Amino acid sequence: MLTSTITSRGQTRHAQPAPPIQGSAMHEMFTMLMNPDLLSFALGLPAPELFPIANYREAAIRVLDTDPQALQYQVRPGPLKRHLQQLMASRGVNCREDQIFLTTGAQQATHLLVNLLLERGAQTLFEEVTYEGLHMALQPLLPQSIIAPTTAETGIDLDVVEDQLKRGARPAFIYTITDGHNPLGLSLSQAARIRLIELARRFRVSIVEDDVFGLLNYDGPALSPMRALDDEWVFYIGSFSKILAPALRVGWIIAPEAFKPSLSFLKHAIDLDLTTFAQFALSDYLDTGAMPDHLATLRREYGMRRDLMLRALESSFPFEARWLKPNCGMFIWVELPPRINSVELLRMAVETERVAFMPGVSFSPPGGPCARNGIRLNFTHCQPQLIEDGIARLGRVLKRALARNG
Amino acid sequence: MLTSTITSRGQTRHAQPAPPIQGSAMHEMFTMLMNPDLLSFALGLPAPELFPIANYREAAIRVLDTDPQALQYQVRPGPLKRHLQQLMASRGVNCREDQIFLTTGAQQATHLLVNLLLERGAQTLFEEVTYEGLHMALQPLLPQSIIAPTTAETGIDLDVVEDQLKRGARPAFIYTITDGHNPLGLSLSQAARIRLIELARRFRVSIVEDDVFGLLNYDGPALSPMRALDDEWVFYIGSFSKILAPALRVGWIIAPEAFKPSLSFLKHAIDLDLTTFAQFALSDYLDTGAMPDHLATLRREYGMRRDLMLRALESSFPFEARWLKPNCGMFIWVELPPRINSVELLRMAVETERVAFMPGVSFSPPGGPCARNGIRLNFTHCQPQLIEDGIARLGRVLKRALARNG
Repeated sequence: MLTSTITSRGQTRHAQPAPPIQGSAMHEMFTMLMNPDLLSFALGLPAPELFPIANYREAAIRVLDTDPQALQYQVRPGPLKRHLQQLMASRGVNCREDQIFLTTGAQQATHLLVNLLLERGAQTLFEEVTYEGLHMALQPLLPQSIIAPTTAETGIDLDVVEDQLKRGARPAFIYTITDGHNPLGLSLSQAARIRLIELARRFRVSIVEDDVFGLLNYDGPALSPMRALDDEWVFYIGSFSKILAPALRVGWIIAPEAFKPSLSFLKHAIDLDLTTFAQFALSDYLDTGAMPDHLATLRREYGMRRDLMLRALESSFPFEARWLKPNCGMFIWVELPPRINSVELLRMAVETERVAFMPGVSFSPPGGPCARNGIRLNFTHCQPQLIEDGIARLGRVLKRALARNG
Repeated sequence: MLTSTITSRGQTRHAQPAPPIQGSAMHEMFTMLMNPDLLSFALGLPAPELFPIANYREAAIRVLDTDPQALQYQVRPGPLKRHLQQLMASRGVNCREDQIFLTTGAQQATHLLVNLLLERGAQTLFEEVTYEGLHMALQPLLPQSIIAPTTAETGIDLDVVEDQLKRGARPAFIYTITDGHNPLGLSLSQAARIRLIELARRFRVSIVEDDVFGLLNYDGPALSPMRALDDEWVFYIGSFSKILAPALRVGWIIAPEAFKPSLSFLKHAIDLDLTTFAQFALSDYLDTGAMPDHLATLRREYGMRRDLMLRALESSFPFEARWLKPNCGMFIWVELPPRINSVELLRMAVETERVAFMPGVSFSPPGGPCARNGIRLNFTHCQPQLIEDGIARLGRVLKRALARNG
């Protein structure tokens, strides 16, 4: 694996109608892969049967019944930020309410930070395989992408990062997913966290730490995110989408003190930073104190599904496939022999076995190096009784593909 | 009034912490002016006592009780877009569902279109007095702003616009508020609409038509927006914030066919374009068919408040003040003698009479020409019994200011 610097072939702005460009690959995948006839391990979906619908329903009713201003323009997100402060403390992160910015999910948080930190055409640094929403957020700004090697064993190659920085690279930010990496599943070691923070300080480079999976930890306490180690260089991104419910569209940023005014300005420019009804109802739900039990339920249930999938992989996948046990998040990353093209494999799997996964190419920037032979499996969405069968079906497809390409 | 071209002194992106910049004036105003002790005509707030809370409550409950996927990631906004198509037809606009893009209110719609159409540093054209959210959305892109004169009598000066275009100006778009102009209150004549469309076609310039007030028409049927005249150059912006409830954060764009793919890409880059729970509940509310009656209630009630305020102005404001009767929207624009500084006046009004309005300077870009002696009065938010008293208090302040500066 080599470090490569590419200039992303991005969307350009235009004052005249442009020829149709390629739509969002993610959105197309969403549409195709949410076909209910498909047994899908593709998307990063939580299990809807675990949503606390009854409690959220009560909270929404209570807000509407007691607050005549609940549907009005509002600028008072106080109670929700107080809850976030507590939730962050449970992750080992101390922050003040005024350092928290509420966002429309983690994607808006990513968009905001990219637009806050990145001059058009400037440098940015991320792993060769990472969350596809980052690529979407970056593309309009046509960055020079410094792409660091990464593996499911140890994560981002910090020797390469250090070497790049020493040789003069000055990315606007380094993007990382510290726990439950998407798509690789790994969590960075404490030593790696410390070293990355040291690099950020030494070379004065911001870090965007995406931590939407950190509260889904299955093997005892998780390490704290890097924001717990540094509040000057680390921008932290969190979200309720994976731990409560996606359609609420509530995420957050914890920003370094010095960036608060400019981030506030940008947030208002983008959507006025008003409180939504979903935020009111969510805050009321959190008032009831139900969140710790809910998180415990998710950890127990998702941990059980992870173990089920790992056992199914052992018994159904060919010996050439490799994977590791993730201790956080929603994904198992499977590396297949290089002769397998995972996009081809997906087509076969959907057509012959009605089963789906996310091919590795989805996690690379346009024109960048990509993990053609990797696949991402989600273990949180499918109900337990379907996991074994689905992995068996996928194993059959894979064996046929190996035989065909043998 | 002269046309002037300024380069907006904008927010710059930066890879290192920047010195604090001026926060959003709008947000500061919001915070100060939402002080409940204040009798405020300042903000563009709807009347919360007219929100259909009971019906929305029922809709939200029905969605949660019947749709187990209501809180999941979703890409199926079908029913809501069908309702929007009907609502638009009632405004005389024919569009297809796939031309409609749902947004987080009109501000996100503005941000999206600015970022879709405007190259950094390129030209844009708007009126010397216009919606302050436009300035916020523009600032990060440091445009060359071509500023057209405007008046509360006839709106944007199309002779100047034509002259600018003839002399080679090629703005990425012309921004207009066709009905119930914010802050001027006026609606463009049919002749002006037709002429603006002709200019757009002749010079191949897009129009961003902000129509968040067009459905609040008080004197019989309103004219149709420009989108009804042209679907190739006009981007239309609508919102439920003024006609239903702001905290739902649901707005929309109707885009020209040729821009659909690039707008879709940008929307995903910004927030993944997922359906929110508020959109589900709103769609269910609209299913009940309650919207036409609700709109009729708003028109009756707001029309009555507008007439009350006009009578109060007649009897309480000094003869040097000038205003017109708006037939749409939420605002009456009052022009005061040039020796009055409306920001000073606001300070006096808040301090001595606990009454507030929006000063004209709020509606000009930083560094641009501004309406120092204009004030915007909202007539929809205050309950009728308070309007007469509030305008009388404001009249007293104004008379004192005139005497002091006489």
